[in-house]
Amino acid sequence: MEPWLNSLKTETPQQGFELAIKLARMGVKYTQPDMEVLKAGRKAYAESAEFLIGASQVVAINFQTVAKANNYWN
Amino acid sequence: MEPWLNSLKTETPQQGFELAIKLARMGVKYTQPDMEVLKAGRKAYAESAEFLIGASQVVAINFQTVAKANNYWN
Amino acid sequence: MEPWLNSLKTETPQQGFELAIKLARMGVKYTQPDMEVLKAGRKAYAESAEFLIGASQVVAINFQTVAKANNYWN
Amino acid sequence: MEPWLNSLKTETPQQGFELAIKLARMGVKYTQPDMEVLKAGRKAYAESAEFLIGASQVVAINFQTVAKANNYWN
Amino acid sequence: MEPWLNSLKTETPQQGFELAIKLARMGVKYTQPDMEVLKAGRKAYAESAEFLIGASQVVAINFQTVAKANNYWN
Amino acid sequence: MEPWLNSLKTETPQQGFELAIKLARMGVKYTQPDMEVLKAGRKAYAESAEFLIGASQVVAINFQTVAKANNYWN
Repeated sequence: MEPWLNSLKTETPQQGFELAIKLARMGVKYTQPDMEVLKAGRKAYAESAEFLIGASQVVAINFQTVAKANNYWN
Repeated sequence: MEPWLNSLKTETPQQGFELAIKLARMGVKYTQPDMEVLKAGRKAYAESAEFLIGASQVVAINFQTVAKANNYWN
Repeated sequence: MEPWLNSLKTETPQQGFELAIKLARMGVKYTQPDMEVLKAGRKAYAESAEFLIGASQVVAINFQTVAKANNYWN
Repeated sequence: MEPWLNSLKTETPQQGFELAIKLARMGVKYTQPDMEVLKAGRKAYAESAEFLIGASQVVAINFQTVAKANNYWN
Repeated sequence: MEPWLNSLKTETPQQGFELAIKLARMGVKYTQPDMEVLKAGRKAYAESAEFLIGASQVVAINFQTVAKANNYWN
Repeated sequence: MEPWLNSLKTETPQQGFELAIKLARMGVKYTQPDMEVLKAGRKAYAESAEFLIGASQVVAINFQTVAKANNYWN
């Protein structure tokens, strides 16, 4: 896979949150690399409560990591 | 997306908890940006046990991050 | 919302555990502020395995935060 | 509720693991204090994969807290 | 129960990962001590996606604890 | 099992993320060592939202561990 993650450092908390979202998406992409399946599924999943809550949970876990790496942007 | 997260610092633990709730909501919003779908779903989800527990879990994970960033408001 | 969380400090681990339970409940309350729905649901949820396990998980995550804030009551 | 948690300190990692199990059970008990419902449910739950995995997850989260409180029994 | 956990220290990360698996199994065993039920269930569970993912999650949480206890085998 | 985990150290965050994915897969493999069952299931699972989100969550938890072990690649 091409380089996509060079650093956990971001300038602002919001960019850190967006990196956490990227990490969540890449976790899915490594598991299911077939883009057509992902795109077909994504449309259906994105309307289900289970998917939205689950995705939000993964983002929260990744945001813990990114926030720590940035010393909470102190 | 417009700026919505400039800092993880809050004055009180309660404001920190409310920031954790905002982070949980934004995690959902980034995943499903279509507000009409979200609003329609929200009404249905908010009455399901699975959604309420899942949301509470995401809030708890985010509150860990916010509390740490504020040195637990010591 | 009225003030309900002034501090994460508690005198004993047991009070810390009870604060963790309060945090879990408030996470639900912020998500579903309609008390009638909550009360109706609560009766049904509280007998389901999924709810009990999920609630116990949220309490465990919150207890990590509270225990850390109290330096594990050392 | 009567005192049931005076300290997070244990002599051995195994006692710490057993305390983590107690914390998981108490999380359920505070949520569903009706012992008859719990006992009836317990029999059914304890054979379901979802319950067993969920309970094991709560124990794992609590064991993180207890292990940290004991400085990993170093 | 007989002694089964004397230390969280292991010589290598791989042994640490295997200890994390043991902790996950013991979490289940304490919850459902009836070995016959466990063995019957295990055969069925081990083929379900939910069980495999759930078990992998518990292992990941326990591995955090074990890795920390070993200072990440630095 | 043959050696597969000698160190948690990686040169880059991306390699760390890929190690987190390997840890998630090994957690499944230790639980269900029968490769034929895994391969058959994998095809079906990889298209389900529950599996993709669950896997992404396990990766996120493992990435916390790996990132910490590498001092966040500072």
